[in-house]
Amino acid sequence: MINKLISDIKKKNAPIVVGLDPTEKLIPDYIIAKHIREQGETLEAMGEAIWEYNKGLIDALYEYIPAVKPQIAMYERYGIPGLNAYLKTVKYCKEKGLTVIADVKRGDIGSTSAAYADAHLGEVSVGGSRLRPFDADFATVNPYLGSDGIRPFADVCKEHNKGIFILVKTSNPSSGEYQDRLIDGRPLYELVAENVAKLADEVMGDEYSYIGAVVGATYPEQGKILRKLMPKSFILVPGYGAQGGKGSDLVHFFNEDGLGAIINSSRGIIGAYQNEKYASYKEEGFAEAALAAVKDMKEDIASALR
Amino acid sequence: MINKLISDIKKKNAPIVVGLDPTEKLIPDYIIAKHIREQGETLEAMGEAIWEYNKGLIDALYEYIPAVKPQIAMYERYGIPGLNAYLKTVKYCKEKGLTVIADVKRGDIGSTSAAYADAHLGEVSVGGSRLRPFDADFATVNPYLGSDGIRPFADVCKEHNKGIFILVKTSNPSSGEYQDRLIDGRPLYELVAENVAKLADEVMGDEYSYIGAVVGATYPEQGKILRKLMPKSFILVPGYGAQGGKGSDLVHFFNEDGLGAIINSSRGIIGAYQNEKYASYKEEGFAEAALAAVKDMKEDIASALR
Repeated sequence: MINKLISDIKKKNAPIVVGLDPTEKLIPDYIIAKHIREQGETLEAMGEAIWEYNKGLIDALYEYIPAVKPQIAMYERYGIPGLNAYLKTVKYCKEKGLTVIADVKRGDIGSTSAAYADAHLGEVSVGGSRLRPFDADFATVNPYLGSDGIRPFADVCKEHNKGIFILVKTSNPSSGEYQDRLIDGRPLYELVAENVAKLADEVMGDEYSYIGAVVGATYPEQGKILRKLMPKSFILVPGYGAQGGKGSDLVHFFNEDGLGAIINSSRGIIGAYQNEKYASYKEEGFAEAALAAVKDMKEDIASALR
Repeated sequence: MINKLISDIKKKNAPIVVGLDPTEKLIPDYIIAKHIREQGETLEAMGEAIWEYNKGLIDALYEYIPAVKPQIAMYERYGIPGLNAYLKTVKYCKEKGLTVIADVKRGDIGSTSAAYADAHLGEVSVGGSRLRPFDADFATVNPYLGSDGIRPFADVCKEHNKGIFILVKTSNPSSGEYQDRLIDGRPLYELVAENVAKLADEVMGDEYSYIGAVVGATYPEQGKILRKLMPKSFILVPGYGAQGGKGSDLVHFFNEDGLGAIINSSRGIIGAYQNEKYASYKEEGFAEAALAAVKDMKEDIASALR
């Protein structure tokens, strides 16, 4: 999948990924109201509202972006009906040729991580059949349990040509509480990054590895160091836009080949219609507003990289 | 919930929790075969097989144990039908008076952790209705993202009388790779434990806090230190039995009041019928074998604590 992702980034000239993180505040009111009329005040109504919203966004954006990143928590929040909307979203995005990065941040002891890897990237056997439960292209993984919690994901990546992004330095304000603490004089995130780099060497695509890392746009100085520590890993960069990361901060996350990073924006794109700048699109134009915001984001990043 | 859990531990004289971690290797073949006959080689068949297996176990065990701990990965592995079986399991256990510890190990940036907390412990609004998507009593939480990833769980615990167990020192072989590294001369897990203790003080039940910790039975020496660092937190102790933890190792996880720890066993109980010791129960007697194993585990722990 890393080869396809890179090829699509080049083709669409867009090292960006749109976070499909539907919340009740972002989904236009008229969509929620419609589904409540049809199904009552139920989780099912919210599942259908999420799906209608996502489909509108995907139809408007798929020709312009290489990838989407659904944050599964926003679907899990509406129980089984929410997760049904997640599954439909993953399938539809893949039909449209988009790479799907499942932002699941799973991670557990070995046998349990294997179950998560099968669920989100791999397959399971039932009798003699092999079935793919969620079948995303990439997943995000939490490293706190150490290498035996990560290894099963790497094994599934090898077998099924999938990829992972391991949390190294997250974008949130308190990420430093543990991640920045010094161990033998160096921050914990560098230790994690070195292990990412070792694993990355084992699971290589053509130019880059199937094993990538998450480093927040909100920490550009750390990004500069981490870029060098993991030369063959793509860096998934959250925190651009709504969380405060700026285009000019992003240059450090890229390699000299102009590759190596993919920048995520969620609210800034899918909630663009709520932003003063795109207010003329109104609620009904949420998808067109999102496309306008994608075009502006592409230009912001392109000009920062020039 | 911590008050109910403690009261049930005393009443049933059993500081134990049974891990409901159904895998294709643990579910008796005849159950899987039956559901494949009915629904084909589908995820739905596995969902129904999990549910039949779990219901048999719960019916046999509920009078003897205070709590269960479903590992959600084992359900997520079978996609939406697997998660349906998870939801049915949580509901049924609560009907039977069991405390449900959702082993989800979620953790993310603040707004996303809030979504996970709503999903697994709290409620969501749809129109004017408040709905509870999964509604477990406790959840396990990963601390790698720092306090703003944990705070939303504590807030939901306060509002809904629920609880969490924060990963401090996990039971797996590679848990030391990051968790044991020295920061200012002390291991990372002690730093995490100190933050657990601080948060625990804020969200107190009668004797113990709603905020607990996970410390693996496989690390009894660390358990001794961590017990003292988090005096008001219950410790959820995985790793007993199949992972190698012994009854005699467990004494360090308890306080002098005989409380403060709850020991998990998964495979050792639910797969007991596959163990030579309980082989006479045969496959069809999987639930009775599990009960025999629960009684032996209670005795093993009681004799260690004497």
